Amino acid sequence: MKGNRMEDNYRRTPRNYTLLTDAYEYTMSDAYIRKGIENDTAVFDLFFRQVPNGGGYVVMAGLDKVIDFIKDLQFGEEELEYYRANGYSDVFINYLKDFRFTGDIYAIPDGTPVFPNEPLITVKAPIIQAQILETALLAIVNGATEHATAARRIIEACPKGVSVMEFGARRADGCEAAIDASLYAVMAGCSGTSNVLAAKMMGSKALGTMAHSFVEAFDSEFDAFMNFAECYPDNCILLVDTYDTLRSGVVNAIRTFDAMKEKGIPTDHIGIRIDSGDLAYLSKKAREMLDEAGYPNAAICLSNGLNAETIESLTIQGAKFNSLGVGDNISKPAGRMGAVYKAVAIIHDGKQTPKMKLSNDIIKIVNPGFKKLYRCYDRKTGYALADVMCLCEEKISRDELSIVSLQDFIKSSVITDFDLVPLQKTVFSGGELVYEDPSFEEKKVFCEKQMQTLYPEVRRTLNPHEYYVDGTKDYAEFKNSMIREIKRKVKETCRK
Amino acid sequence: MKGNRMEDNYRRTPRNYTLLTDAYEYTMSDAYIRKGIENDTAVFDLFFRQVPNGGGYVVMAGLDKVIDFIKDLQFGEEELEYYRANGYSDVFINYLKDFRFTGDIYAIPDGTPVFPNEPLITVKAPIIQAQILETALLAIVNGATEHATAARRIIEACPKGVSVMEFGARRADGCEAAIDASLYAVMAGCSGTSNVLAAKMMGSKALGTMAHSFVEAFDSEFDAFMNFAECYPDNCILLVDTYDTLRSGVVNAIRTFDAMKEKGIPTDHIGIRIDSGDLAYLSKKAREMLDEAGYPNAAICLSNGLNAETIESLTIQGAKFNSLGVGDNISKPAGRMGAVYKAVAIIHDGKQTPKMKLSNDIIKIVNPGFKKLYRCYDRKTGYALADVMCLCEEKISRDELSIVSLQDFIKSSVITDFDLVPLQKTVFSGGELVYEDPSFEEKKVFCEKQMQTLYPEVRRTLNPHEYYVDGTKDYAEFKNSMIREIKRKVKETCRK
Repeated sequence: MKGNRMEDNYRRTPRNYTLLTDAYEYTMSDAYIRKGIENDTAVFDLFFRQVPNGGGYVVMAGLDKVIDFIKDLQFGEEELEYYRANGYSDVFINYLKDFRFTGDIYAIPDGTPVFPNEPLITVKAPIIQAQILETALLAIVNGATEHATAARRIIEACPKGVSVMEFGARRADGCEAAIDASLYAVMAGCSGTSNVLAAKMMGSKALGTMAHSFVEAFDSEFDAFMNFAECYPDNCILLVDTYDTLRSGVVNAIRTFDAMKEKGIPTDHIGIRIDSGDLAYLSKKAREMLDEAGYPNAAICLSNGLNAETIESLTIQGAKFNSLGVGDNISKPAGRMGAVYKAVAIIHDGKQTPKMKLSNDIIKIVNPGFKKLYRCYDRKTGYALADVMCLCEEKISRDELSIVSLQDFIKSSVITDFDLVPLQKTVFSGGELVYEDPSFEEKKVFCEKQMQTLYPEVRRTLNPHEYYVDGTKDYAEFKNSMIREIKRKVKETCRK
Repeated sequence: MKGNRMEDNYRRTPRNYTLLTDAYEYTMSDAYIRKGIENDTAVFDLFFRQVPNGGGYVVMAGLDKVIDFIKDLQFGEEELEYYRANGYSDVFINYLKDFRFTGDIYAIPDGTPVFPNEPLITVKAPIIQAQILETALLAIVNGATEHATAARRIIEACPKGVSVMEFGARRADGCEAAIDASLYAVMAGCSGTSNVLAAKMMGSKALGTMAHSFVEAFDSEFDAFMNFAECYPDNCILLVDTYDTLRSGVVNAIRTFDAMKEKGIPTDHIGIRIDSGDLAYLSKKAREMLDEAGYPNAAICLSNGLNAETIESLTIQGAKFNSLGVGDNISKPAGRMGAVYKAVAIIHDGKQTPKMKLSNDIIKIVNPGFKKLYRCYDRKTGYALADVMCLCEEKISRDELSIVSLQDFIKSSVITDFDLVPLQKTVFSGGELVYEDPSFEEKKVFCEKQMQTLYPEVRRTLNPHEYYVDGTKDYAEFKNSMIREIKRKVKETCRK
């Protein structure tokens, strides 16, 4: 075997992601040390600005991987060598040598529906520590939430009783993303995944039917079907679109079911999968053919680039299906989260200064300060009414609450008769992991329950109601005054 | 620290991706064994059907990871346990126990521009071995080629002399995808990456400027800039859009450059980065301000969701920029490759039978048979004229070549005065790695050279010329006759 020239330790998937950071985090960190402000504490919020694909909610995911990443953070000789070779200062390299995370992390648990501009994760730590988490935390959460959200969007679009199987590994962005897609899709409500490795990780059995290549491996479609039926009478789902769905595939499937009966093989778990062509037309015709042949129990599984919109269209057209296999649109969904990680406060000599990026884009204005985030549930119906943020030190009212839009301070409302639940959990405290991350099975149950607290109008595919993420009256006034103050300073700069 | 409940070996990124497979590969494999056809040899082609984003070419990538995946393939006790627990047959589990890849793999080298419907990778191996590679090979190649292609598309859209830095790690689909995005973007022509881990893997220095949080970490924007300038006079690119680009950021940048001069700090490597707002307007105004202040050498870097279309639009508007930072549109490009892996031949008892999936979707018709693939270069200009495939046993003409479209057999042309170069290399032969995968630096040089062989009309962003991927006359006739034969069989099935 010929050798590979890339550094051996990094040739394959690296085992340590500590260096998965944008270079500027370290450039800035080195400057913090050289300027003597490395003992300042910074507070960063991780949040997103828009729900992908025009949806009404995002499903939080990836906290498990964030925890692992932080637990694993360390700079070995190999990592330090990079900094030495690239001109970083000795004092900085010494700092990294003894590095361990000593800060606090607050996060919304996996499986929770979340909304734009609220802090999914808040990091409060010495400024360098807080800074160098940015890239990896974002990559993890962006990827994970996209998968979970895409899966849930598809599940919400399905008629009652139809299950969604995640089939997307092959279209994922490499092997690790394929695993994430499968795990978070199941967490968000998929009935299972075809991904063996992910299924093993969750302690469940991977799902699947057959591929076209199986049909082609035998002399005829009927031969292939019969051989499959003999091996798997308990899950005999035959793929019928290799040559011609209605004129060959379904005909041969029925012939196979007939032969099973003749041979005394039970036909309780039979069905077909259609993976190409006009799924509405073909599924209705196939249903008729199966029913007429005496197999009303034969299930129909559809697949082929399905998304929420096509599923709703199939339903309207009266397509017949019992389950769906969804690939690309879970493992590589069209919409991007685009989550960001922004400084909201700096604590210097014990004095906290809230921070805010203003910029020319209104949508890029950050909610400043170290905040708390609550969800208000209607006491009568249990529905979630709004999420509300305020500064940590504010004592939020639990009786009557004035909430104000943080994009448009004129919009406000008053809510009463509500339960107030803090959304973030303490995950790390003083560098110590204090949060027990639930199993995927528990997260799945939790997610389902949480999704049911959203109004159907927030959950729908098209033009969903925009869920309120507001501030308390005090917080809105605080944000407004900060904007005014920054604008005043800008004017001053100009004048000088 | 509280424990995590997921199986420990699989908690983080697994170290062995062998089980990253769709369950049906194993279900089918078990059936092959039980039906006694496991010694058949199968030939599979990995190919894509459309260039993402309406582009004219794809940049091949991911072969290095495919090689690693195949070298690492093995079923340990832990993997076998999954199969035992899930009802697979003993004979199948025994088969896996001694598994090693023994087949042949032919592939197009990383960095080569490639086109729809041509085999990027061909696997010829005992049917089970060929089958279980499917999912991982697709995930690897789909992800890798999307990044390389997206990066190249952006590079092609830039005016001469403008360099593109890859900044996308934070928007990637998790950590592994972030590394892939950075590596393959540099291979495809980016000047570098901000991803420290990827830069380390390539033996280069990661690139970067500063974040908004750096500006916020100090009392004023000017303070932040001065501190940065003192630490990094050699690469003093100041981020100017934290508060107000023109009225504060650029003003303070100029003030900083002035102060550097006063203090005797050289101002040879100065510049600004603009990351929000109307980049065309702001960059032109900033250029004017910098020039007027005596800093015509100050570079302007633009970033913020740039893609090929916005870059071309900026250029047309006369925007001023020396370099670009591109994130999302390389690390998570909008278009999907959607590559597939299809059986094209089965060899049983030494007899080869070509295979082909017909189906109701014309675009899903496969090019059957075990094939060779050539690129024809114009001898006079060096430009690539067409790619041509034929069955392995065909002796292709090197003088005058009739080539025929494989989607529409009526379209044909004759080419003369060409050089014929086989596109696939032998990578594995009888399970042995016989290919030396070049370094990323070598791949980058190779890619640049290969891209220059494509007509500019194939490389352009909008409505590129569709490069020919045809068959020899004999091959086209062979494919046509196979389609007719399958249709005849379908009719027979119907009649029965």
